[in-house]
Amino acid sequence: MKQFTRAKSLSGEFIADLIERAHAFKKSKKYPNLSGKILGNVFFNPSLRTKLSFEAAMARSGGTALSLSSGSGTWAFESELGVRMDQDKPEHLKEAVRVMSRYVDALGVRSFASLGSVEEDAKEKVLSAFEEYATVPVVSLESAFEHPCQMLADMMTVQELVGVPRGKNFCLRWAPHIKALPLAVPHSALLAAAHLGMNITLAAPEGYDIDKGYENWVRSISHEKGATFTRITEPERLPEDTNIVYVKSWGAPSLYSTPARQQEELRKLSTWMVREQQLQRDSYLMHCLPVRRNVVVSDGALDHRNSKVIDQAENRLWAQLGVLDWIFSEE
Amino acid sequence: MKQFTRAKSLSGEFIADLIERAHAFKKSKKYPNLSGKILGNVFFNPSLRTKLSFEAAMARSGGTALSLSSGSGTWAFESELGVRMDQDKPEHLKEAVRVMSRYVDALGVRSFASLGSVEEDAKEKVLSAFEEYATVPVVSLESAFEHPCQMLADMMTVQELVGVPRGKNFCLRWAPHIKALPLAVPHSALLAAAHLGMNITLAAPEGYDIDKGYENWVRSISHEKGATFTRITEPERLPEDTNIVYVKSWGAPSLYSTPARQQEELRKLSTWMVREQQLQRDSYLMHCLPVRRNVVVSDGALDHRNSKVIDQAENRLWAQLGVLDWIFSEE
Amino acid sequence: MKQFTRAKSLSGEFIADLIERAHAFKKSKKYPNLSGKILGNVFFNPSLRTKLSFEAAMARSGGTALSLSSGSGTWAFESELGVRMDQDKPEHLKEAVRVMSRYVDALGVRSFASLGSVEEDAKEKVLSAFEEYATVPVVSLESAFEHPCQMLADMMTVQELVGVPRGKNFCLRWAPHIKALPLAVPHSALLAAAHLGMNITLAAPEGYDIDKGYENWVRSISHEKGATFTRITEPERLPEDTNIVYVKSWGAPSLYSTPARQQEELRKLSTWMVREQQLQRDSYLMHCLPVRRNVVVSDGALDHRNSKVIDQAENRLWAQLGVLDWIFSEE
Repeated sequence: MKQFTRAKSLSGEFIADLIERAHAFKKSKKYPNLSGKILGNVFFNPSLRTKLSFEAAMARSGGTALSLSSGSGTWAFESELGVRMDQDKPEHLKEAVRVMSRYVDALGVRSFASLGSVEEDAKEKVLSAFEEYATVPVVSLESAFEHPCQMLADMMTVQELVGVPRGKNFCLRWAPHIKALPLAVPHSALLAAAHLGMNITLAAPEGYDIDKGYENWVRSISHEKGATFTRITEPERLPEDTNIVYVKSWGAPSLYSTPARQQEELRKLSTWMVREQQLQRDSYLMHCLPVRRNVVVSDGALDHRNSKVIDQAENRLWAQLGVLDWIFSEE
Repeated sequence: MKQFTRAKSLSGEFIADLIERAHAFKKSKKYPNLSGKILGNVFFNPSLRTKLSFEAAMARSGGTALSLSSGSGTWAFESELGVRMDQDKPEHLKEAVRVMSRYVDALGVRSFASLGSVEEDAKEKVLSAFEEYATVPVVSLESAFEHPCQMLADMMTVQELVGVPRGKNFCLRWAPHIKALPLAVPHSALLAAAHLGMNITLAAPEGYDIDKGYENWVRSISHEKGATFTRITEPERLPEDTNIVYVKSWGAPSLYSTPARQQEELRKLSTWMVREQQLQRDSYLMHCLPVRRNVVVSDGALDHRNSKVIDQAENRLWAQLGVLDWIFSEE
Repeated sequence: MKQFTRAKSLSGEFIADLIERAHAFKKSKKYPNLSGKILGNVFFNPSLRTKLSFEAAMARSGGTALSLSSGSGTWAFESELGVRMDQDKPEHLKEAVRVMSRYVDALGVRSFASLGSVEEDAKEKVLSAFEEYATVPVVSLESAFEHPCQMLADMMTVQELVGVPRGKNFCLRWAPHIKALPLAVPHSALLAAAHLGMNITLAAPEGYDIDKGYENWVRSISHEKGATFTRITEPERLPEDTNIVYVKSWGAPSLYSTPARQQEELRKLSTWMVREQQLQRDSYLMHCLPVRRNVVVSDGALDHRNSKVIDQAENRLWAQLGVLDWIFSEE
């Protein structure tokens, strides 16, 4: 059964094939023929881009996307095995996923990091339940640790902005926020840059590392491509000749268990907000959205002509059409 | 105007016709042509199978299902007549149902038992409002006392499992829960077994009877078919040679008005949880879902090869296609 | 880019054209061909008629309406410019509207009056954000001060009820409620009557005036058409020979800042509830719905044969088909 659920395990060739499909759809404004196909998307947290772009992608292709929100309209779903289900979750994913598989042709699932423990998040219990129990193809719409659809859209966007990415410079720039956010997008953005063969700078305060396993994986792909991986901790300015400034906030995993201290630390780091002055002439600003203006990025930077966040969001649609085309094809 | 709203009033012949349609759709994997048809479904409580299976059924048939949730996204609806509407329900079903009838080709409604008074629940005020005010066909998606779509799906499932159900043994087995649940599914499950001519055993603790009117109706159909109806109150084991063990929890109507005592009684009855040991070699386990694992049924029983809850849930789709085919046909 | 967002700025000719389309669709029961078109509707408050009629209109025309609720399922959206977004709204409309424009072919937006300050409401910040940032056509699904789709449906309904409206008598009759409601529908209803050349009576308690700018605009259109505009403050009976009694509640803008006093005043005015006795032989009752029975209008009046609220609600569908036909046509 086809699954598009784990960014880390995808080969560079496969990723390139999906992105080629995506560019072709965007260029021709033609859509795959998904007539009669139903995609069932289950959301464990709010969504704008993911929800609407998948619904639009299916509608434009002649199919249908049906969306469910765990705990709102439908039941809250349990993912732990072996528990006595006497709390607030009346249905187990072991039933729900198998049942939904009987009604639709593919399932999408958006789970979310608990931000309670990095070990727990790394287990990807919700996504794993879909992978294990589904009897139809599964697409991840973001999980605790990864956002593979965002990764594809980001790769498309970088290609559109810089032409041949190999050897160009990509900076993942940490930004402040009002609360700790998951690692999924930072992980996927770095994987995107690594697969594109870009020199990577990870600019984040001390303690705001990404998951070590992901960092090693990203470093190894970069190394294979002959690209560099640099870690800096200075907020003042971006590295010279940065082509892409990818801004994203995430929480410090070491502070997950002490949310009050996490908040306090975040407040101290508010100078990391990205401002217009930090955008160089040829640096393009990317962010996965939603973005809190004047907390994460200033109005001036977001409204700058080099801010490409809207084009980036549009590419979610095209990248996902590439995925859907693959998922529903006979190959 | 066609209405599929009351399980009790449906003739055996009509039920058989709908189920025949359902089996034919399932066998051929072909769908009725409902191109251009719109079904408007109104939910007064959460739903997974009902919502998704109707949306999928309409999409697969070329039509559209539009879903509304009373009180979430749309207004909370009043069903009492003659009241001064100065509380939390800004719209009366007298308007809402007539208005929705102007926009769609058929209406579905999922109401829910109040569990405050069995007399009140028996009045089926929400369902009755749809029956009275709708100017398009109405389908019940479960009401306080009945779940006719579930009944059809259950009949299909039993036929698939035991071949010719007449003379075989059906046990509706009460199970514990963390709170009182409605009588709709127990009522419909017993009606299903009675129409199939099965010998029925109702296994539930003393005091956990179903509605007397329904029981009499079920008994009279059973009698007509030459089948038996037995009431037992022992949890330890199932009757000999049970072919179908239909597990479901429901509240004791006599305790509706004293919820604290209801909870206390439920706690005492936790030994009624269905376990693997209670499944005999040829007993198939059915449950309408959602099911609380290790409260209602143990992991071992639910994961047993004789557990057919997923097939049963799938049949919701096919049974409802039978209903929709009838609703939208010119006959 | 086409926008159908401001009732006040629409010319009489344009309105007449849309209504002609709407009547033609209703008469022929044929729909425009919107195959492959996607309308994205964003709701900032609950909706029944607007949501369902647009979804049905798109489905019947071969297209798709996708609905999002700000703050439920999707993010809560900020509309203020220049703010530091460190509160409960994680996404700015400046991003959200531009992103949604990349996924769909037209956007609808339902905002709502804050009822905190009439000056603030007059700014229509949410609607303005859609007008400014959208790169696809925009339709207002009601805003703080106007409800142009309701206006069209109301004009159709009046035409159906009285034939040639010019010179006939229209009374906008204030009614009590449990809380202050926005001015959008009163404004649009009066504009409708003025465009139809009807003699207008505005019957509302002292202090319950509509916005002065709107009143002047309505008066000037009426004057141009040779019709009259009268303001009365007596609740007891309707003016002689009223053809249309349009009932609607709204709050006193001067009491927005003192909600407790607003409530107290509303209680004093409960005698304004419209009753059957107040309907003359040839007076038709209109109301945009939802309506609180026996608070705003009595059961007797709503259930009277001259109550046309359901027909009026149906016309939402047809009027919006006129708008959608225009929005998506190549003209």
